[in-house]
Amino acid sequence: MKTEIIYGIHPVFEALRAARREFFEVYIAKDKISKRLEKVIEITESLKIPVKSVKSYQLKSIAGSDMHQGIGVKASPYPLANISDIIDKPKLPNCDNFLLIIDSLLDPQNLGALARTAVCVGVDGIIIPRNRSASPTPTVSKASAGALEHVFLAKTTNMVNTIKDLRKKGLWIVGMDKDAEKSIYASDLTYPLAVVIGGEEKGIRPLIKKYCDFLISIPQAGKIDSLNASVAGAVVMYEVFRQKKYKNL
Amino acid sequence: MKTEIIYGIHPVFEALRAARREFFEVYIAKDKISKRLEKVIEITESLKIPVKSVKSYQLKSIAGSDMHQGIGVKASPYPLANISDIIDKPKLPNCDNFLLIIDSLLDPQNLGALARTAVCVGVDGIIIPRNRSASPTPTVSKASAGALEHVFLAKTTNMVNTIKDLRKKGLWIVGMDKDAEKSIYASDLTYPLAVVIGGEEKGIRPLIKKYCDFLISIPQAGKIDSLNASVAGAVVMYEVFRQKKYKNL
Repeated sequence: MKTEIIYGIHPVFEALRAARREFFEVYIAKDKISKRLEKVIEITESLKIPVKSVKSYQLKSIAGSDMHQGIGVKASPYPLANISDIIDKPKLPNCDNFLLIIDSLLDPQNLGALARTAVCVGVDGIIIPRNRSASPTPTVSKASAGALEHVFLAKTTNMVNTIKDLRKKGLWIVGMDKDAEKSIYASDLTYPLAVVIGGEEKGIRPLIKKYCDFLISIPQAGKIDSLNASVAGAVVMYEVFRQKKYKNL
Repeated sequence: MKTEIIYGIHPVFEALRAARREFFEVYIAKDKISKRLEKVIEITESLKIPVKSVKSYQLKSIAGSDMHQGIGVKASPYPLANISDIIDKPKLPNCDNFLLIIDSLLDPQNLGALARTAVCVGVDGIIIPRNRSASPTPTVSKASAGALEHVFLAKTTNMVNTIKDLRKKGLWIVGMDKDAEKSIYASDLTYPLAVVIGGEEKGIRPLIKKYCDFLISIPQAGKIDSLNASVAGAVVMYEVFRQKKYKNL
């Protein structure tokens, strides 16, 4: 069976808490012990996961990163959701369905940051393309502060068909496009919807854009006209969240 | 005279465009040439800045980073604003004054990301403490995609006094606190105001918090209760921006 090493205090803690993976062995760098680390170690002990003491430099080589903060855990691969797990949730009209489609984003840091915000606003799930996209690796789990361990994330081999399926289920497909005339603030985002966020350089692929019901942009006031991809995603996710939950304030 | 090396295509481009620094020498790694880089080189030529061809590995050592994307420029230090440049802007009641106070944020990546978003929403300026804070270095300029080169950023040795001065000028001081009961969406943020964002781990320092007119939080729906510092900053800055400019939509 394939395994991977989840590393860092938050990712290991959240993976244990989410309980969606199998855990085979915990690696602790005793020279990195801290109070926060001790709490996580207590949990691994209560779950009876075998522990191995290592040096910090050894853990760096085991985890493939020096961002391990003294802990790593050998675990089963990331528990991908099926598209149907996410798609089949929408059933009621006017319900709060809210999916995120991340089209061809390449930077694991951005994918992690988006997953973290997605969990904070309570999205139903994230869909990414199987190819030409950052994948939910331990690096992404770290970048998400462990949020990746909780979110439903599915890969699709055919994004166009997936979008067609979502439309059949009654979701509106809303694409983020910095050249779109309509602003997120002038758009009604209270419907069941899937927000499509594009890649860092080129945005949403043209073929995908064609299948969006409408395109919206984030207004900007300043001398720089580009938001960071994960910040743009956060701003639109929070605007959907605000409109769905706080519109009457 | 002290100099520093600004590196990366966006930071160099924006520094040249902002024209707030002196430029002494440009370093180009010819093995990294790209169309985007050529455009920046044209500008340096039109400004008659001396050019030096280097190898990519040499530029890494000159810039102190391998994120140089083939270009670096030796420039005068970051042009800090005076507090008074920023504070003296607010004069009219009900004007759109909007300052950002970043209290004891340590990660240069977060400071850069916040500066980038601040420029996108058009803040009047950013104030940071002189000590215990990330400083506007070339690393921050890179993390801001060059936005740092445009923003007014001032350091203060006494944040409490600065806040008192801002209050005298008629600004409301609004602190971000994840335990605050009042949400950003239930708060009127259309007044002239300074938003205070705290550090990554502990938030705003207690002494500073005492001088805030009120504290607000970003509501969260999910299993993870912490947004990344730069994302939290972006969400509140965009909510202020929305309320000031788009409230009637």
